Amino acid sequence: MQRIAIDMDEVAADTMAHYLELYNAEFELSLTKEHFHGKRTLEAIDQAHVARARQYFQTESFFVDIPVMPDSQQVIRELMDRYEVFITTAAMEVPCSFSPKFAWLRKHFPYIPASHVVFCGDKSIVAADFLIDDDPRHFQRFRGEGILYTAPHNVNVTAYRRVNNWLEVRQLLLS
Amino acid sequence: MQRIAIDMDEVAADTMAHYLELYNAEFELSLTKEHFHGKRTLEAIDQAHVARARQYFQTESFFVDIPVMPDSQQVIRELMDRYEVFITTAAMEVPCSFSPKFAWLRKHFPYIPASHVVFCGDKSIVAADFLIDDDPRHFQRFRGEGILYTAPHNVNVTAYRRVNNWLEVRQLLLS
Repeated sequence: MQRIAIDMDEVAADTMAHYLELYNAEFELSLTKEHFHGKRTLEAIDQAHVARARQYFQTESFFVDIPVMPDSQQVIRELMDRYEVFITTAAMEVPCSFSPKFAWLRKHFPYIPASHVVFCGDKSIVAADFLIDDDPRHFQRFRGEGILYTAPHNVNVTAYRRVNNWLEVRQLLLS
Repeated sequence: MQRIAIDMDEVAADTMAHYLELYNAEFELSLTKEHFHGKRTLEAIDQAHVARARQYFQTESFFVDIPVMPDSQQVIRELMDRYEVFITTAAMEVPCSFSPKFAWLRKHFPYIPASHVVFCGDKSIVAADFLIDDDPRHFQRFRGEGILYTAPHNVNVTAYRRVNNWLEVRQLLLS
């Protein structure tokens, strides 16, 4: 059985949506994801806000309230019939995120066994056939095929097969 | 560069020593590691104590005070000159252990980058050439070579190369 590793932030979890909600509310703005095309989140905002915006990601409660990416629950469940599925999420830069990220996964993806959740930093440690991730840096030393999940910061990357949403993941891996 | 994945409990960390210290103190016993030869920790104790002993491992503070396995700090530092080293520890069964385990590694092994720490359950997800672990179950689907680090429960296992201490790790992998 082939194995798929799936990233959490910006792939299974719509982290950007939650970030924008907090940021727009605090600074009375109405930025959308389009504003961030081709840029890292903290590059595309008023530089006077960076220190404050960075704090969002250092706050345990931030990770509790992230919405699920549309259709991810259904498609991941379907993938599990044909593949071994692991969630591989970079958590080591924000140790306070361990527990809320784990709880989030148990809540929204209870059918993924806890033993198939991986917190890591450098994803070259992941042994899988496919890695669905929004960050192409993780593909450089990954031994399987990286599949790029579209996020605002990666729209200009062309080196990998791309999926724009979970229905396209289904199309690519289940048809 | 070849890669070595190293388990934490019973390999880099002398978890059993700490467990025995607590258990002997609470029940006024003087059990040693020899008492546990060939058995899982909770199998080898008075069955009336199992529920209480299990709690030790569910307590966050338990993980803070575990002593380092003798010579592990020095030998792991030496391994890092010749290999890429990752710490791969099963933490998903005890979510309260995430933060103290991570803090323990930062304290005792500050030269291992945070990006090379992996919390996982099923270690078949680990892409490495060697896995040094006390639990032979992790070797069954591991794609590299499993090297069994002696712990009381595994003394009768014969299917893998074995190391009894960190000086033997140095001998095996650095000479």
